[in-house]
Amino acid sequence: MSDKQAPTADQLLQQATAWWSTSIINIRPGEIVIRGYPIQELIGELSFAQMIWLMLRGEVPTAPQAKLMEAALVAAVDHGPQAPSIAISRMAVTCGLPINGAMASAINALDDIHGGAGQQCMQLCQSIAQRIDTGDKEELAIESELDRFIAERGRIVAGFGHRFHRIDPRAVKLLELVRTAQDEGTVSGRYARIGTSIEQSLSRRKGTRIPMNIDGATAVIYSELGFPAPLGRGLFVLSRSVGILAHAWEQTQQGGRIKGPMPPKIPFEYVGPPVRRFETKQTEIR
Amino acid sequence: MSDKQAPTADQLLQQATAWWSTSIINIRPGEIVIRGYPIQELIGELSFAQMIWLMLRGEVPTAPQAKLMEAALVAAVDHGPQAPSIAISRMAVTCGLPINGAMASAINALDDIHGGAGQQCMQLCQSIAQRIDTGDKEELAIESELDRFIAERGRIVAGFGHRFHRIDPRAVKLLELVRTAQDEGTVSGRYARIGTSIEQSLSRRKGTRIPMNIDGATAVIYSELGFPAPLGRGLFVLSRSVGILAHAWEQTQQGGRIKGPMPPKIPFEYVGPPVRRFETKQTEIR
Amino acid sequence: MSDKQAPTADQLLQQATAWWSTSIINIRPGEIVIRGYPIQELIGELSFAQMIWLMLRGEVPTAPQAKLMEAALVAAVDHGPQAPSIAISRMAVTCGLPINGAMASAINALDDIHGGAGQQCMQLCQSIAQRIDTGDKEELAIESELDRFIAERGRIVAGFGHRFHRIDPRAVKLLELVRTAQDEGTVSGRYARIGTSIEQSLSRRKGTRIPMNIDGATAVIYSELGFPAPLGRGLFVLSRSVGILAHAWEQTQQGGRIKGPMPPKIPFEYVGPPVRRFETKQTEIR
Amino acid sequence: MSDKQAPTADQLLQQATAWWSTSIINIRPGEIVIRGYPIQELIGELSFAQMIWLMLRGEVPTAPQAKLMEAALVAAVDHGPQAPSIAISRMAVTCGLPINGAMASAINALDDIHGGAGQQCMQLCQSIAQRIDTGDKEELAIESELDRFIAERGRIVAGFGHRFHRIDPRAVKLLELVRTAQDEGTVSGRYARIGTSIEQSLSRRKGTRIPMNIDGATAVIYSELGFPAPLGRGLFVLSRSVGILAHAWEQTQQGGRIKGPMPPKIPFEYVGPPVRRFETKQTEIR
Repeated sequence: MSDKQAPTADQLLQQATAWWSTSIINIRPGEIVIRGYPIQELIGELSFAQMIWLMLRGEVPTAPQAKLMEAALVAAVDHGPQAPSIAISRMAVTCGLPINGAMASAINALDDIHGGAGQQCMQLCQSIAQRIDTGDKEELAIESELDRFIAERGRIVAGFGHRFHRIDPRAVKLLELVRTAQDEGTVSGRYARIGTSIEQSLSRRKGTRIPMNIDGATAVIYSELGFPAPLGRGLFVLSRSVGILAHAWEQTQQGGRIKGPMPPKIPFEYVGPPVRRFETKQTEIR
Repeated sequence: MSDKQAPTADQLLQQATAWWSTSIINIRPGEIVIRGYPIQELIGELSFAQMIWLMLRGEVPTAPQAKLMEAALVAAVDHGPQAPSIAISRMAVTCGLPINGAMASAINALDDIHGGAGQQCMQLCQSIAQRIDTGDKEELAIESELDRFIAERGRIVAGFGHRFHRIDPRAVKLLELVRTAQDEGTVSGRYARIGTSIEQSLSRRKGTRIPMNIDGATAVIYSELGFPAPLGRGLFVLSRSVGILAHAWEQTQQGGRIKGPMPPKIPFEYVGPPVRRFETKQTEIR
Repeated sequence: MSDKQAPTADQLLQQATAWWSTSIINIRPGEIVIRGYPIQELIGELSFAQMIWLMLRGEVPTAPQAKLMEAALVAAVDHGPQAPSIAISRMAVTCGLPINGAMASAINALDDIHGGAGQQCMQLCQSIAQRIDTGDKEELAIESELDRFIAERGRIVAGFGHRFHRIDPRAVKLLELVRTAQDEGTVSGRYARIGTSIEQSLSRRKGTRIPMNIDGATAVIYSELGFPAPLGRGLFVLSRSVGILAHAWEQTQQGGRIKGPMPPKIPFEYVGPPVRRFETKQTEIR
Repeated sequence: MSDKQAPTADQLLQQATAWWSTSIINIRPGEIVIRGYPIQELIGELSFAQMIWLMLRGEVPTAPQAKLMEAALVAAVDHGPQAPSIAISRMAVTCGLPINGAMASAINALDDIHGGAGQQCMQLCQSIAQRIDTGDKEELAIESELDRFIAERGRIVAGFGHRFHRIDPRAVKLLELVRTAQDEGTVSGRYARIGTSIEQSLSRRKGTRIPMNIDGATAVIYSELGFPAPLGRGLFVLSRSVGILAHAWEQTQQGGRIKGPMPPKIPFEYVGPPVRRFETKQTEIR
């Protein structure tokens, strides 16, 4: 607007085209190319998990890398109909939403508190790794990053402990798979070690065992595989979407209309002012 | 409320518990059971695609069934940054949304027109199959169901033709995989045959080849594998979510704030009334 | 693509500009014009309700028109924390969503069944009016359109009867306001008459009084004021958004993390298969 | 779970009821009470703006308070079809979404960057006011809170300056209305003064006038009226929802299917690797 010369049509068009630039996909009539690969060469060859990796990272993973990521995706699909995301999905279809809409309302709820624990735990682990890389002793790195996490986010450390499961069976199995992958040379085992050290430190601090949960174990796996922290939340969303879809579909089969959180006969509690009369003069100027 | 006797606390509680009943998952402290299987026995054993099937159908698919479904999931992940769902995802992150929120706004847009073609094509194919089952000749079944589809939904038959690709390379490859699966006894080939017959009928009707597109080919596969039509949309949402996530992430890396559909210097067109003055008395009673 | 000549940059740019054409608003640096009115002439002069009307209809309503629409907007703001939209909003903030995100997940649920009753009732009333306009007697028009509605949508006629309120106090008051507006010449009273006749017909059919509810009463008002049916849903969304926001905010003040539909100690019911073992060979080919 | 005694059905039921407690609304068959007022006494008496206030604050505002809030709500309804929220709404309806769904995807995008400026500016103004209350000189309070804001959020101070409008005509008018309201004793004028002082400080810092924009002016008004900062975003969402709805409706009238951000003939730019072949052995173990 303050340009000396207004841009030409060609320049504006180039701007518009550049505005929507991508390195993920190219399409031309009859051609769809994903990260450089003609899509017909990938279909039937790549597993869905490998395709997820290719789309997010730009390269095809090795089979063992994909298998480890896949275990994490399998582990997190569902945590029951009373998890808020799942409950929202089920309520939504009874309001008339199609499956995409129910999934949208539900996935939206996978925010910092309900869907961000894995990402936060990855940030914690990766910041510890960075400190070690720049010369800190492991113990110091863990203690000071833990202190910082708790100062910034409060006493619940994402990835450790569970309000429902004392031991999370998903975490136990996932950590076994990390050890196997380490033995086979697929991953270095560095983040498994950091995760275990965090667990020990927290247990010492609280005087009771605070075991790694599903978010901690997936954070270890995704970090071992080189994913940046925000993609941890992205992968969790892909995983939990499966449960959200399955429950939306089951609710559709069960039927029900405008289904709220509790059956209509269970009342809510009103805690506001007692009934009072409205007088128009209330809104007159004081 | 009109009950003769008010329900007891026990009865109300049972209602609440039943209100949230599910056959998908059971959880108890230390136990998570998916469709009857302890989750730790599935992690590391099932592929992500197999887990999707188990969650949606209640049983574990055979490896070839899972592989065929997986090919369809791989095929539909992305169709470029100008597809509205992908564009919404990219715009959303520049507005400050986290990845789950960007995915939600985008997935929501996979509605009847942008995400429902596969489901509609499955309904068409399955209603043709049903008519054949009840004694109609194939040709009659196809022609009359096609007529009905067009009467109800207009001349664009979901699953056939593409405004951009003359031949959709994804469909070609997917149909090859169906043929192989048929040869190996994984599927019957019935829906591939119905799909091809629809293609021929449409091409005859329009006097030009209207080839099956990605939505048609995935509809064939999901129907061959026994999925009900609404899950066709659900599977498409799971697949396209991968592209939506990848583009959200790429946009995050590119940066940009409050990014609209076109660069700010490319103006929109105003087609309303010329500037006019507002007079308060306009709103007075006539 | 099949064009003989590729379009020039100028032509493409014009296409892009036309693609985003609107008659609602024009902006230039330092100028914002709504439906032809410079916005600074509207601010402080128009009520929020009048602005809603101007945005949707293109002209400023008279004061009595705006007042009648406003009564309908006021009436529908909330129906308690167990309405699914409100419950979703409250659950969403406990998952970490900001207010806009909680509102989005909740508003999304105002679909056909939870938010479409007013629109459906407007369609019913307006199709009856159309039949009368083309010569049908009122009684015939009502009976046959009612029959059609029930055949297409089932026995619950949108806008009449309520599973909770025998008499809906909002509807009673709104219909009084329509009568006053009719006496003052603001509306014709035609749709109030049609609504009342539907109520009488339904009550005859069912042998018990099926009184008009909030959706019926707002459908009467919006139809009297000349709104097309889909905007009935739009106006309901604007109204209920107020309740959705108020409850999101109240929940934020109450606190709570990852709050599901019922407190954690009230279990859900599992109705799936008993625990079984997973055997890898299950997924081998048959 | 670790309770010595399991809770009784009565206790669990009381928990469930308390879980959904509210002070906003009470409903019983035939009765709907908002903040203590029977709803039928409010309908036809309160303006929509007054009802918004009552729902959010618990008390009915005076007429001049409501009028000032209303001016802010009127001012922010729309900023053209290329604002991402509005563009998302328009694109969404072409994908088949109903009005509620289009509004949901769009409102979701009113996050920190696209919808949070008013809230952030309120936080800034209110933290300055708090420092003054605890004894700081105004100038010190402004300079140090500005420094803190910039350190935490970067150099763009929410509420001041506009990339498109040099002078924002909405802000000018709104500030006039605040002055009038101050003269009439409706507000104290304290936040108008703080806002103006921020404007002066920023202009000094940058060596050019950085005038208050719409977000700054609404932040002043909402702060003058006693709203907490997060409700600033809530009120903005209510206001912008009107534009989002109007554009969704206009797009419905224009038609169009699966409308992306630019017409199909304007291409996007691919910046990834050149076409390469996929070799299955790539995914074999290293």
